[in-house]
Amino acid sequence: MKNTYRFFVAPELLTTEFVRLEDAELVHQLGRVLRLAAGTQIMLLDGQGNQYTLELTGVSRTCVTGRVLSTGPAPDPAYDLTLYVALIRPERFEWVLQKGTELGVRRFVPVHFSRCLPNERTDGRKTERWQRIIREAAEQAWRGRLPELAAPLSFAAACTAVAATQYTYILWEGSAPPLREHLAPSAATASYAILSGPEGGITPDEIALATQHGIMPVSLGPHILRAETAPIMAAAVLCYAFAP
Amino acid sequence: MKNTYRFFVAPELLTTEFVRLEDAELVHQLGRVLRLAAGTQIMLLDGQGNQYTLELTGVSRTCVTGRVLSTGPAPDPAYDLTLYVALIRPERFEWVLQKGTELGVRRFVPVHFSRCLPNERTDGRKTERWQRIIREAAEQAWRGRLPELAAPLSFAAACTAVAATQYTYILWEGSAPPLREHLAPSAATASYAILSGPEGGITPDEIALATQHGIMPVSLGPHILRAETAPIMAAAVLCYAFAP
Repeated sequence: MKNTYRFFVAPELLTTEFVRLEDAELVHQLGRVLRLAAGTQIMLLDGQGNQYTLELTGVSRTCVTGRVLSTGPAPDPAYDLTLYVALIRPERFEWVLQKGTELGVRRFVPVHFSRCLPNERTDGRKTERWQRIIREAAEQAWRGRLPELAAPLSFAAACTAVAATQYTYILWEGSAPPLREHLAPSAATASYAILSGPEGGITPDEIALATQHGIMPVSLGPHILRAETAPIMAAAVLCYAFAP
Repeated sequence: MKNTYRFFVAPELLTTEFVRLEDAELVHQLGRVLRLAAGTQIMLLDGQGNQYTLELTGVSRTCVTGRVLSTGPAPDPAYDLTLYVALIRPERFEWVLQKGTELGVRRFVPVHFSRCLPNERTDGRKTERWQRIIREAAEQAWRGRLPELAAPLSFAAACTAVAATQYTYILWEGSAPPLREHLAPSAATASYAILSGPEGGITPDEIALATQHGIMPVSLGPHILRAETAPIMAAAVLCYAFAP
């Protein structure tokens, strides 16, 4: 099913053979932008690991209907990676959401580090925009799961939130061992949390607090990566190490 | 020497203890933008693996002078990675240059694949802009070497150009083995060439030609990466595998 259009929809729309889509944006996209007609096949995803091949039976201005031809599992990484990303400049943050989604991140948590710029705040409009970026990237990348966007946390709350995660790292430019030495080669189904700081760097207090919570400072090499590049390199590395 | 400004300059300027900088752009940057004064220390790099700590002795509108306090090696990856990148949309291509420089790429070669958009051409102005992106990224990332930007090649010429490289790969969404299975763990000082295709993908003919030249098709996992994400993931992986 290469080159098939793929869309995440609410799972409750996919409980019967005949499907009715009324979401205004999706209906506009299918009918007006892509100009799909009855008979075309598209792929719907429930965001929870299942995909449904749908043959369109009707396309109107307000509604698209179709019939499920087949269902099956939608592949997604077996490991569970949460990126705790500093609220960096919006265009960079959005870039981390897009690339991180392509590279298998399962959950994004925006974090207020003490050196975040004071005006990097979130609001409802930003959250909606970010969710759209994630959804579109997940559809393009053929992700089976729709990555989550969590509410922003303080740095201290983030340190507490990772408690249940099996492997937790904080990316640091200081004298830390390379990530390579601490990535268990057999942990392809484990849970990972990676914390990544802002443009101004991570403070010694933050490193101390993270270490107290069992979060391991790791280095990504001798060069200085931008705040948006480091988390993406880390996501790429997990993809490389654990993708089938 | 954290937080020291770093600049690449022509190596011939660094042959004596007293240094005179007359490049209009650099003089403007030092004097007008950063407002540095005599007594400030900066780092100059010859782009070939050496760095020079310079104490400024004079800053005028047309010239900056200084005295070399010390010299030493400027660290840079020991492996030699050339990215052969399809001419994708300019903003994406520029992004590959910036991120690739942070992630240790030593040489960028723009390549015309058959599915490149016909209007993605290069000219002198673009080349100059691209070289500036590379230089600024290399200064920010503390690269010891200044990555090269080669002249664009046809796909066939790129296949020939990699002949002297020890490990050569082409990133492919088709049924190829994962890169992980083909990255020699001990090859930290080897030469690598990675070919990466355009938005429209690589044609079967191109894969066949690459294979004839001993270039190995490899996969980066089951998900579909954008044309700009795949080469950056590959560069990140080499960084991860081989950085000290």
